[in-house]
Amino acid sequence: MSALRVQIERIKEDLLALASIGRNEDDRGNYRMAFTDHDMAGKRWLQQRIEDAGLQASMDGAANVSGVLDGKDGGPRIFVGSHIDTVPCAGMLDGALGVVVGLECLRVLKESGTNLQRAIELIAFSDEEGRFGGTFGSESFTGLVNVERIESSVDLNGVRLFDAMQAHGLDPLKALDARRPAEEILAYLELHIEQGPVLDEQRLQVGIVDNITGLRSWSLKFAGEANHAGTTPMDYRKDAFMGLADFAHEIPRILEENGGEHSRATIGKAEILPGAPNSVPGNVEFSLDFRDPSPEKLDELSLAFQRALAAISRRRKLMFEFSVQGEIHPVDCDLNLVKILQFAADDLDLRSLNMLSGAAHDAQVVGRIAPMGMVFVPSQGGVSHSPAEWTAWEDVEAGANVMLQALQHLGTQPS
Amino acid sequence: MSALRVQIERIKEDLLALASIGRNEDDRGNYRMAFTDHDMAGKRWLQQRIEDAGLQASMDGAANVSGVLDGKDGGPRIFVGSHIDTVPCAGMLDGALGVVVGLECLRVLKESGTNLQRAIELIAFSDEEGRFGGTFGSESFTGLVNVERIESSVDLNGVRLFDAMQAHGLDPLKALDARRPAEEILAYLELHIEQGPVLDEQRLQVGIVDNITGLRSWSLKFAGEANHAGTTPMDYRKDAFMGLADFAHEIPRILEENGGEHSRATIGKAEILPGAPNSVPGNVEFSLDFRDPSPEKLDELSLAFQRALAAISRRRKLMFEFSVQGEIHPVDCDLNLVKILQFAADDLDLRSLNMLSGAAHDAQVVGRIAPMGMVFVPSQGGVSHSPAEWTAWEDVEAGANVMLQALQHLGTQPS
Repeated sequence: MSALRVQIERIKEDLLALASIGRNEDDRGNYRMAFTDHDMAGKRWLQQRIEDAGLQASMDGAANVSGVLDGKDGGPRIFVGSHIDTVPCAGMLDGALGVVVGLECLRVLKESGTNLQRAIELIAFSDEEGRFGGTFGSESFTGLVNVERIESSVDLNGVRLFDAMQAHGLDPLKALDARRPAEEILAYLELHIEQGPVLDEQRLQVGIVDNITGLRSWSLKFAGEANHAGTTPMDYRKDAFMGLADFAHEIPRILEENGGEHSRATIGKAEILPGAPNSVPGNVEFSLDFRDPSPEKLDELSLAFQRALAAISRRRKLMFEFSVQGEIHPVDCDLNLVKILQFAADDLDLRSLNMLSGAAHDAQVVGRIAPMGMVFVPSQGGVSHSPAEWTAWEDVEAGANVMLQALQHLGTQPS
Repeated sequence: MSALRVQIERIKEDLLALASIGRNEDDRGNYRMAFTDHDMAGKRWLQQRIEDAGLQASMDGAANVSGVLDGKDGGPRIFVGSHIDTVPCAGMLDGALGVVVGLECLRVLKESGTNLQRAIELIAFSDEEGRFGGTFGSESFTGLVNVERIESSVDLNGVRLFDAMQAHGLDPLKALDARRPAEEILAYLELHIEQGPVLDEQRLQVGIVDNITGLRSWSLKFAGEANHAGTTPMDYRKDAFMGLADFAHEIPRILEENGGEHSRATIGKAEILPGAPNSVPGNVEFSLDFRDPSPEKLDELSLAFQRALAAISRRRKLMFEFSVQGEIHPVDCDLNLVKILQFAADDLDLRSLNMLSGAAHDAQVVGRIAPMGMVFVPSQGGVSHSPAEWTAWEDVEAGANVMLQALQHLGTQPS
């Protein structure tokens, strides 16, 4: 196999061009939220870049943008992609990097005249970031959306997905036609920034993802009794905030006893009522976000958290309530794809690490129906969803070459 | 000494009449916040009731309302009082009860022809509850206000004390003339609802206050690093909220090790930033209110809290800041007055308890310059600052008779 390499200058150029679409010059942030004018301009730019590369560009019913490099076989395809929509005030890499790197890989494979057995399709999925709930494009692609989802999704300002798509001349119900049967997907590969500190802290260039963690998101309440902070003796109190403090204090123990090395739990939000310095808190509402790559561990953690909540409520004479706000299933990466990516990284002499993805990705959705693999590149300082999001160009190049080599391997293998 | 007794029906009548001034019929709450129309109407009503009792009513420069029952001596006087201003949506007892009971005591003493050696003066202090900072009337009375305080005090809506007083034809700077020299105050006695659960839970009718607790109020911040809740491993985090949870967890230990049986500490308010379920909290701002009747214990607690904050910051790689929001000095009740009140309660065969006041009162201010004593009556369920605030009439009667007997004793003692 000839030693193909990406051209980092072309990746830079494409990334900077895409970043100029929807950039706010005040905060230097990218604003390409799904189905905004800027997002649609990004989709048109991408289609043009695909055609510039001599590939056939198209857009499916979910407004996912594709570009195909044909192979000899008409059988299942290899997919490579990510998304180009952003959160508000985003950096220029989250999502965009995976799409631009995929495009560069297809360009290199085409220019090199590589003899592909199977077609490789670049795909940029719609609304990964969640203006309308998230991973809308990849869920349409895998057949996980239905009419109800399409008709009921609204953004934080009350704008309906339905209306936002129609405003750009799109027929929202056509998203149902974006489905690709599992048997047509040989593999899905995605390169993404890590969005965490592990690779950067360990000075590694590439992460090969083993699995994408599962997530449970709860909303919780402790109810006690609001009282005067001066006149209420400590042992008469039913202090809802102290219940929360007790619970927070149990988190490390529960992760150690009932979780694994990749377990995470976060209290990210809390509201205390009445919220006056001289009042014993009568109520507290808070969030719990916990994650693990193993479904069994997630179940164990759920039970342990509930036991702790019940014990604290009894001890502090509080009531507790909880409701499930969200649940994302963990997905394992395909073992064969992990090996191919690992081999590519070793062949390129890169310092790599097998790791899990703590964030959700389109790959997690596609992985529910087809073999899936992911490559991570370092996020400087672990920062993402911020204009400060950055990855050194040499690390981008390293990750892109891992992707290129894996695609070349998969595409040229005999059926 | 003849066995004088208050007439509970007159106390009821006065309380209900005063409660009808500024009552909102929707929430049944009292709204006589300082220097509002309702507060001023309350002051006029009180002056009329004082005159109805055949006493001389007056109003000083701080709009404190007085009524004097003369004694033979022209020397120092005995004061009895409280306040008639309220918090918004108040009950009918906080403050008002002490004033109405004082008035009834003067009426009974006058009607009985008791031969007083010393004058007894009823006083209703302005703005105890704090529309303009609190205890304005008693601070004027004791000479603790100055021009700066009078000119700079504003309420939560930005209304200046100066303008609020002028709007009622009062000259705000005359508050400086409301000062009574310490040598003219033989004693100050105040009856008040407990505003806590102790008497009610223990089925006691009367509390004799030993001291009024001191208060320190701090505003605190932990600063860490906001990060993605999924991609940031537990041991890479600088979670500001977990710092707060650690600190809350140390409170019981610190109270046990460095405080005393009356020490209290409360985290009543906390704001977590960025405050998203899937973000590790980067910042948390919170309040700490701690109280103790001993200045030494307050100092010890301050040091222990600061040591805990520093240790937690080091352990969790956080920064901390704190600023002092308020400080109220603890004040001991006069031992002789405690004995007189105790003797009266015993003589009346009442179940009484020596206790501390966990809330601040006008008595705390007057106690800084003159002998001071307080009588508590039970708050049902410990509730106050609410329309649900209540005390059984028989407990009101019991407390009022203790006050009457103490005033009779003090007023008739030979100089």
